[in-house]
Amino acid sequence: MEVDEVVRLPRLSRVAVCGGTHGNELSGVYLVRELLKGRKEVMEKKEEEEEEAEEQPPSVLTVLANPRAVLQCRRYVDTDLNRCFTHAALKGPLPGAVPYEMIRSRELNATLGPKGSPGAVELVCDLHNTTANMGLCLIAYSDCDWICLHIFRHLQRKMPDIPMRYIHFDVPHKESYSLDSVGKHGFAMEIGPQPHGVVRSNVYAAMKAGVQHMLDWVCFFNSGSTFEGEYVDVFTMIKHIDYPRDSETRNITAAIHPQLQDQDFCLLHPEDPLFQTFSGETLRYKGDEALYPFFINECAYYEKGIALSLARKRRVMVPAIRVQTERERQAHMEEEEEE
Amino acid sequence: MEVDEVVRLPRLSRVAVCGGTHGNELSGVYLVRELLKGRKEVMEKKEEEEEEAEEQPPSVLTVLANPRAVLQCRRYVDTDLNRCFTHAALKGPLPGAVPYEMIRSRELNATLGPKGSPGAVELVCDLHNTTANMGLCLIAYSDCDWICLHIFRHLQRKMPDIPMRYIHFDVPHKESYSLDSVGKHGFAMEIGPQPHGVVRSNVYAAMKAGVQHMLDWVCFFNSGSTFEGEYVDVFTMIKHIDYPRDSETRNITAAIHPQLQDQDFCLLHPEDPLFQTFSGETLRYKGDEALYPFFINECAYYEKGIALSLARKRRVMVPAIRVQTERERQAHMEEEEEE
Repeated sequence: MEVDEVVRLPRLSRVAVCGGTHGNELSGVYLVRELLKGRKEVMEKKEEEEEEAEEQPPSVLTVLANPRAVLQCRRYVDTDLNRCFTHAALKGPLPGAVPYEMIRSRELNATLGPKGSPGAVELVCDLHNTTANMGLCLIAYSDCDWICLHIFRHLQRKMPDIPMRYIHFDVPHKESYSLDSVGKHGFAMEIGPQPHGVVRSNVYAAMKAGVQHMLDWVCFFNSGSTFEGEYVDVFTMIKHIDYPRDSETRNITAAIHPQLQDQDFCLLHPEDPLFQTFSGETLRYKGDEALYPFFINECAYYEKGIALSLARKRRVMVPAIRVQTERERQAHMEEEEEE
Repeated sequence: MEVDEVVRLPRLSRVAVCGGTHGNELSGVYLVRELLKGRKEVMEKKEEEEEEAEEQPPSVLTVLANPRAVLQCRRYVDTDLNRCFTHAALKGPLPGAVPYEMIRSRELNATLGPKGSPGAVELVCDLHNTTANMGLCLIAYSDCDWICLHIFRHLQRKMPDIPMRYIHFDVPHKESYSLDSVGKHGFAMEIGPQPHGVVRSNVYAAMKAGVQHMLDWVCFFNSGSTFEGEYVDVFTMIKHIDYPRDSETRNITAAIHPQLQDQDFCLLHPEDPLFQTFSGETLRYKGDEALYPFFINECAYYEKGIALSLARKRRVMVPAIRVQTERERQAHMEEEEEE
């Protein structure tokens, strides 16, 4: 690929903005409710006005993903919805007593997917919060999805006061497990720190701005803007580290060390303090490579056996992109038919 | 009362340290587990050694108050245990399907009380966490319990780096509802900010130090030290303020204003920003008296309809105190018998 080549990509006709995939991550819950209310107001206004012949923005689907968990203000009712979107979970036979979230993931796949099919929505943005001090992160399964990476750069430029990172979970498409994997492109927008079950104005406002800038970018893209190529830092997840645990009870015996707490994305070196046991002892990082910690002390990951995750940082060259013209699109389709 | 008079108070023979009254407030859960482990080690050591004739410290009862909620890492299973210690709840007839916490509160009352009886433990310290930025607070039902107030002053002196306040809930003894009301003296030790379901080393360490200093103080007191009289600031709870809510759905329509978030115990004046609606509007404090906000944006209080509480600050003269001698104790008992 030449650096100055402009990659042509299909139009993003439909964008899904999802919140409440985890029912106690409240910024997304309240933002989705606000967007639904706003859309109602917009539609009522439209009915009052005469239809004007102007360019339409992309069709936006706003989805409260796990309404039952939202009602109970819990992460999930039976099982973590955001692990129910693998091909196996969506296509396999359903067990006798089906967890609610296994049904809900198929409903969402029917609405926004089917995953991997031409009918899937072009872009899924799934809204999440974390108790970790992560700022705003886009989390995606690809380090070469130019749409996601250009949206990330747009948000970085538009929101210079918010620490922002792009996290890459290197998982094959079939095994990708989260709601955002249902779209042709997709990412989780993860913002913290915010306790689950709480909404903080600053975190809510950052999420609202992030979603608005994302939708603006899609409008610019669809209307034919060219976005220049540039380098982007990508944090690729390497491994998880669990808490020290009692061999009998499996209870944790230490918390994140105070020197590491809230230091997400600050390089962790071998022998740096990692945990402080409840009796006061310091335990150190025994890895042989300095890596970037994130999801440090995320509430929901105690049960998953994750005290923090570690990433390697790489610089990725993102090419310039532009939407396909109608002629390019048709040529592309003909090429595909010939193949 | 003369300022230089020394008030004589009965010995504190038994102290209860309770955690996990709310199962997802993890500093107390892990501290109680650590204390139970430590006590086992101490007892094993004692068995090895010869019994030595030295003064015994107070008998300490360490209690995991709501073990079922702890197992599920939830505030409670059926109902909030820390509202189940009114006289009515402890003595009234039990309904057909009895909530687990209504049974558990009676068990705890049998172990640590009975509430209001001569057999009750002398002091209950119940460990709590909050998502609010409250530092370390002692919360009690009395502004003239000299034991609690002297313990508070001792902690303030010993932990100068931790913001510390004494909160007074002005509720009659019979209506006092929380576990700490079962003891002859009692308080909640509330530390934040810490998300529920998370343990942060700094918050855990502050709680551990607070409990140790409290137990030290009880030893000093029992062994006959005199504690000088002095003034203490007491924050008396005046009222709660709920979130703005949608009249139909009862969903909240605003979050704590960013200028108020984390500003616990900073005076809130009439017309100061209070909430920011999800559409971005600022709502102001309409009270006519400047008051001190606390429990700002506490996670567990969304369901109770409390966005924050407001307190008035008063300076209370706490007299000098000293433990009763055996002769004073007997004279006191004879006086009571004569009456």
